[in-house]
Amino acid sequence: MRVVKKFGGSSVSTIEKIKSIANNIAQNYKEGDEIVIVVSAMGKTTDSLIKLAKEISETPDIRELDSLLSTGEQQTTALLSIALKERGLKAVSLTGAQAGIRTGGIHTKNKIESIKIERIEKSLKDGTIVVVAGFQGINEDGDITTLGRGGSDTSAVALAAALKCECEIYTDVIGIFGVDPRVYKNAKKLDKISYEEMMEMANLGAGVMETRAVEIGKKYGVKIYVGETLGVETGTYICDESEITEKKDVTGISINKNVIMVNLENFVGGPRSIATIFNKLAQNSVNVDMISQNEVLSSKGSIGFTSPLTDEEFLNKSLEDIKKEIPDIKITKKTGVMKISLVGIGMISNFGVAAKVFDVLSYINEEFYQCTTSEISISLIIKEDKGMKVVERLAEVFSI
Amino acid sequence: MRVVKKFGGSSVSTIEKIKSIANNIAQNYKEGDEIVIVVSAMGKTTDSLIKLAKEISETPDIRELDSLLSTGEQQTTALLSIALKERGLKAVSLTGAQAGIRTGGIHTKNKIESIKIERIEKSLKDGTIVVVAGFQGINEDGDITTLGRGGSDTSAVALAAALKCECEIYTDVIGIFGVDPRVYKNAKKLDKISYEEMMEMANLGAGVMETRAVEIGKKYGVKIYVGETLGVETGTYICDESEITEKKDVTGISINKNVIMVNLENFVGGPRSIATIFNKLAQNSVNVDMISQNEVLSSKGSIGFTSPLTDEEFLNKSLEDIKKEIPDIKITKKTGVMKISLVGIGMISNFGVAAKVFDVLSYINEEFYQCTTSEISISLIIKEDKGMKVVERLAEVFSI
Repeated sequence: MRVVKKFGGSSVSTIEKIKSIANNIAQNYKEGDEIVIVVSAMGKTTDSLIKLAKEISETPDIRELDSLLSTGEQQTTALLSIALKERGLKAVSLTGAQAGIRTGGIHTKNKIESIKIERIEKSLKDGTIVVVAGFQGINEDGDITTLGRGGSDTSAVALAAALKCECEIYTDVIGIFGVDPRVYKNAKKLDKISYEEMMEMANLGAGVMETRAVEIGKKYGVKIYVGETLGVETGTYICDESEITEKKDVTGISINKNVIMVNLENFVGGPRSIATIFNKLAQNSVNVDMISQNEVLSSKGSIGFTSPLTDEEFLNKSLEDIKKEIPDIKITKKTGVMKISLVGIGMISNFGVAAKVFDVLSYINEEFYQCTTSEISISLIIKEDKGMKVVERLAEVFSI
Repeated sequence: MRVVKKFGGSSVSTIEKIKSIANNIAQNYKEGDEIVIVVSAMGKTTDSLIKLAKEISETPDIRELDSLLSTGEQQTTALLSIALKERGLKAVSLTGAQAGIRTGGIHTKNKIESIKIERIEKSLKDGTIVVVAGFQGINEDGDITTLGRGGSDTSAVALAAALKCECEIYTDVIGIFGVDPRVYKNAKKLDKISYEEMMEMANLGAGVMETRAVEIGKKYGVKIYVGETLGVETGTYICDESEITEKKDVTGISINKNVIMVNLENFVGGPRSIATIFNKLAQNSVNVDMISQNEVLSSKGSIGFTSPLTDEEFLNKSLEDIKKEIPDIKITKKTGVMKISLVGIGMISNFGVAAKVFDVLSYINEEFYQCTTSEISISLIIKEDKGMKVVERLAEVFSI
């Protein structure tokens, strides 16, 4: 069977773990198998390399940073190949460039443009296990590039797309949960989740899979399996919604505490003021997440939005800038809040989900500060100290 | 001015040292300069990577080992380039493959076959400092290769040959000494030494420069400067003997304590026994250095040779094998000895050197166990505990 298997940094953080993976591959290898393995850098290697670069320059040149960081994955590929060969298997390590992964874009944030699979195909044909460095490629100038954090997932899924096979992502969790099991102990592991739901979950802060990787999976119809490295329990498949027979209203709830909420009131409404406000935010590199506006029947405008708490410094600067432009504006900031997002492909055809959510809040007598929706999600801002009570109740009601 | 500068592992072992080198380059950079810098891996990085591989396999696959080890130099090139750019210079890091260094041979012991200098030339033309990973290249299969220990010297001199310029090797000594200053404190630094002398010195255990690098320098007429990293004192030029006006009888004395001496006697002489002896040594991977034979007017053969003390285990095995084949042979091993070698291009035209050496030994009443000569060298095996007295006296007599 042809397959791409990806092992992340925590799965290859020690020589012992690398040996265990090699043992597992050797035990399960069958004549005719065509296996591509994508690996990340060992443990915290990437962080250590960034630290070295930062000791030299606060803003290290990004072309050079890419060349520096790419060595981490290259080391893992060589070590795993040595381990596989030691166990009598045929194996070959390839850098991103050697694996034919061509990228475009700016350094440290490249995107995969194409994969020349000839070299990989040739090795697979003669039973050689191909170990590819994740997170990296080469651009048209022949420079080494990286795909940004979490890019190894993207490498793996893109390779699976090019090689027309399934992609297995091995990590330190047993699969994808409806709710983060670290915050809600009764959380259930999902057997399947659709690409769309997974993308919403990732964007909303679930943090299990890189959104770009899931996007590529969806685009090329790559079935993605997420499971525990060397685990015995079956993990979760990320697949097309047509493969999911039992569509739940809500598949998962994601929780995000890195939130600050801002309300702006008492300004002359209309597109011009709104444009001024969001331009000032953009100029100060503030990420804006939820935006909600209620048209009120007065001449005065009001709008609310959320930003990551980690952007607070830039946000404060923006709000000063906005105040200068629109002196009468009334600004309210709220911290100590969290965002709860319910995601489910079933929502598209079921209008009752929002009503159920509001019922829950009413039942436990909790107010929410803001609410936005997409086709397959509902997000609420609520008080952080009441958040877990709300999540638990919602999880029960929607059987997550 | 166009120049290749090479900085070894101890010169780039910390971020502080890398910054100091960048400062030095920035201070001395002049408009129009064309600078190529070759670097080794930081400090003990290569050893650490080998250790990791050995934890996985006692005999790690050599293709994979090459890919693993090459990351060490790649990291240094990126870090130094970041430091140079931080100081406002234009710089670009290149792996061996990117620098066009094509190699042939077996992994871990490759030889440079050709260098495609187009990419380097292009960068030099627009004033970019090119930082190349030493010790590595790429073979015709597109695999990453390494040149073996000390290979960064070879990379640097080969690049200088291809770029038709001088090569500066920066290290932790202020230059090349007639005698190792760690063992003879009155040793004098040489201003110049010929390629041939340097090659003899390196082979004989002086350990300052890789012999292969000097060979390439001789073949392509590359003037090599050896000096201290960021030092103020002028170092030593390795150049053609025609550039050395004052030819001394003896330029240097090299000392080697890693020696075991073996004498074989009482065997039926002739080429067949000799062949048996040296075949057994080769089969057991014993390095044989000095070989001396005196034809004696009897039917019995005798021969002496030296090997590295570090090969003693293999040597003992060989001697057992020889004893099995030639039961009557008498074997004497001698440890506690050292090899002293006098090297000088002047010897070719001066027959008195050997006589002077024997005069010295006679004067201080020291015997020697073995003596061999080449066109430009005389080597002696003497008792280790008397060695330094002999070296000091010879250094005085020959003004080294």
